[in-house]
Amino acid sequence: MEFNSHIIQKAVESLSSFPGIGKRSALRMVMHLLKRPHQETIQMADALIQLKTELKICKSCFNVADTEICNLCKNPRRESDLLCVVENFNDQLVIENTAQYRGLYFILGGLISPMDGIGPEELNLESLVQRCASGLIKEVILAFSATTEADTTMFYVTKKLQSFPAIKISTLARGIAIGGELQYADEITLARSITNRIEYKI
Amino acid sequence: MEFNSHIIQKAVESLSSFPGIGKRSALRMVMHLLKRPHQETIQMADALIQLKTELKICKSCFNVADTEICNLCKNPRRESDLLCVVENFNDQLVIENTAQYRGLYFILGGLISPMDGIGPEELNLESLVQRCASGLIKEVILAFSATTEADTTMFYVTKKLQSFPAIKISTLARGIAIGGELQYADEITLARSITNRIEYKI
Repeated sequence: MEFNSHIIQKAVESLSSFPGIGKRSALRMVMHLLKRPHQETIQMADALIQLKTELKICKSCFNVADTEICNLCKNPRRESDLLCVVENFNDQLVIENTAQYRGLYFILGGLISPMDGIGPEELNLESLVQRCASGLIKEVILAFSATTEADTTMFYVTKKLQSFPAIKISTLARGIAIGGELQYADEITLARSITNRIEYKI
Repeated sequence: MEFNSHIIQKAVESLSSFPGIGKRSALRMVMHLLKRPHQETIQMADALIQLKTELKICKSCFNVADTEICNLCKNPRRESDLLCVVENFNDQLVIENTAQYRGLYFILGGLISPMDGIGPEELNLESLVQRCASGLIKEVILAFSATTEADTTMFYVTKKLQSFPAIKISTLARGIAIGGELQYADEITLARSITNRIEYKI
């Protein structure tokens, strides 16, 4: 697509660098901005710059935060002896949005993946061990996706935390998704959900 | 979706104001920016601000432009007696990208639509009449979509330009799209393409 205006061209090229946004969608976004009030675009540009200049990493849980220690870690109403270890900020958000978990989080910053050159030293593992060494944690929940990398990481983290026998280590239940039909479940999930069947009480 | 960080919240809300971008996509965009170099975000913010501060409207064709008169209107190699009237900047772009048209453009700035409160005075019609009055135009191509509003506008513009009998007025051919199958063509298009059938020469 060739544009008559370099300014438009630059904006379209910049916006189409987003994942899943092609030149056409970027052009629609530019057209939208052109129609909207001046102030909206300025605010958007400010919001983007703030992401890079003002966002911090929480010193306690390694999540993105507005302050040195994030609101969640500072919140006295969270159960501070429960630590949910997640891969990244997105997974933390997904779990927090279930509104079922009242403990704290710890962002590992990735999963061990030799294929991608990510070893244990690339992750925030040392800090996790230190956190557990504080003696304030009773349970660590390893809340990862159900992939090979996640399994490797889970194994490695569990090994590391074995020096704290007082800490219970748990993981997310795997099984048939709510609303899922048996005939569409994959065999491994189904096998796992039979092996780890749970008592049914009424 | 609730965020731990106001900075992220603001960026997500701002980006989700784009048409077709929901909160989840906006979050993906934010995550992308967080991963990419600082400079990229600054450049994007700059590009967006430039859209609002530096973009001009060409005084000749009413297209968005970097200069007072756009590159296209200034280009001496375009056929300056051929004027293609389009609804907006997007339609101009679509036609220009076919690489089949070598004349000039004129952006009407909308279509007459009483339902949306858009009358002829909201459009750049007076300027179009002045442009035609200059005596430099031999043919005006009304290149609108095939909607009721477009038909109304086409009728109105044609009436307005009847005071210049030297100017030929034409419109886009309507018919079966290239690659289209007859069985899937709608009846009105098919009927029109039979009535306006064209001579077939080999």
